[in-house]
Amino acid sequence: MPRYALKVEYDGAPFAGWQRQADQPSVQGAIEAALARLEEGVPSIAAAGRTDAGVHATGQVAQCDMARDWDPFRLSEALNHHLKPDPVAIVACARVAEDWHARFSAVERRYTYRVIVRRAPLVHDAGQAWHVRGALDAEAMAEAARALVGRHDFTTFRASICQAASPVKTMDAVVVEPVPRANGLEIRVHLRARSFLHNQVRSIVGTLERVGAGAWPPERVGQVLAACDRAQCGPVAPPQGLYLTGVGYPEDPFAQG
Amino acid sequence: MPRYALKVEYDGAPFAGWQRQADQPSVQGAIEAALARLEEGVPSIAAAGRTDAGVHATGQVAQCDMARDWDPFRLSEALNHHLKPDPVAIVACARVAEDWHARFSAVERRYTYRVIVRRAPLVHDAGQAWHVRGALDAEAMAEAARALVGRHDFTTFRASICQAASPVKTMDAVVVEPVPRANGLEIRVHLRARSFLHNQVRSIVGTLERVGAGAWPPERVGQVLAACDRAQCGPVAPPQGLYLTGVGYPEDPFAQG
Repeated sequence: MPRYALKVEYDGAPFAGWQRQADQPSVQGAIEAALARLEEGVPSIAAAGRTDAGVHATGQVAQCDMARDWDPFRLSEALNHHLKPDPVAIVACARVAEDWHARFSAVERRYTYRVIVRRAPLVHDAGQAWHVRGALDAEAMAEAARALVGRHDFTTFRASICQAASPVKTMDAVVVEPVPRANGLEIRVHLRARSFLHNQVRSIVGTLERVGAGAWPPERVGQVLAACDRAQCGPVAPPQGLYLTGVGYPEDPFAQG
Repeated sequence: MPRYALKVEYDGAPFAGWQRQADQPSVQGAIEAALARLEEGVPSIAAAGRTDAGVHATGQVAQCDMARDWDPFRLSEALNHHLKPDPVAIVACARVAEDWHARFSAVERRYTYRVIVRRAPLVHDAGQAWHVRGALDAEAMAEAARALVGRHDFTTFRASICQAASPVKTMDAVVVEPVPRANGLEIRVHLRARSFLHNQVRSIVGTLERVGAGAWPPERVGQVLAACDRAQCGPVAPPQGLYLTGVGYPEDPFAQG
């Protein structure tokens, strides 16, 4: 069966997460329903990152196996047609080898977490960022974030329901970027690693927020990391600020030509 | 009565425009309803730009007259509390002189129009930009835009219902800014003038889109401007891409101190 890689953008708000659920809307379920309009008996699809309820994506990557030989552009157009009105779009589609796998072939995941700092309620970014009303010190957050880069036991920043075999992960980057806005300040936290533990990004950002607010000194982040103790983690940041922005493979399946 | 300047951000989607209407929701109506929760008999409010149905703002400026002496910060907090759940926020508030007027004291209006160019449907920016599916040449649009800068008779770019006394306006800037995005290209058109005619920005952007798409040569924009003939205008761009981003006054009422 010809296999296709799909680059997927979605708004997580109406979904119980990526993964198909019996009784709740999911991104996987929405795409599988669209695929079922194109062919009968399309097998279950897989994705690089199984995002939680409310989490967004601009660069999720999934795969599907089709019975017919589809032109990739036509496949993405047909899927987008049937995905309406769900806030899910196929932004790229490519034919890949049958042993390529969206999840197991991936060598990097990239996430961005958006925090908007201002007193007034959010308007255009409501549901698309974490709204923090008090001031945050982005420099202190950046200083604290440096302790997280590299290979560490991330037990402190791991959900109790995490199913990963090991809590040891290598963070290739944790970058705090202040972005001036018309009315307020946006702080983006960009994270890059081969793979992440369940809730790891939101646990890290919720902890960095404590530093930004002045409630924690920056050095405490390295200390709680070293403690390998979930109870020492800061609060978990809410899902609506989190975006899966990209997935890396040994070769980019969406590169032209 | 103490007068206050309000800097207002709103999502235009649920509103029939800025101006109060008997039977439809409006931004003015939403703010006046919130004011009525604070004091009885608050007079009608005025704004610098009476935006059309569906048009957004990040920097609208309005004024209100209160019976009581309000601390500006407390007034904005109370208004934001009562504005919920409408997508309207007071992002700044300042006490101003009683002869200051949000509309008549204004010496500059700034608008930004957002176009997103990509094949796939919009997800996070749905309703917040004009979605154009075919490619646009931003350089050709920028070249065409130069003909619009300066003092001209803008009859070609004026709605037939426009009530302005004269069609002669001075455009201080019409800047086409390409902004690379994760999935697609965004083109922002920034316009700055003392005042604008009704539908002038959307008429200009709809015309520049024809140039970007290759349907019009860039020099045609200067020619249709010179023709002073509404029939020669390009299509009017849709409201959801337009943002009133700021209003200029001889002295910034929101400057600290």
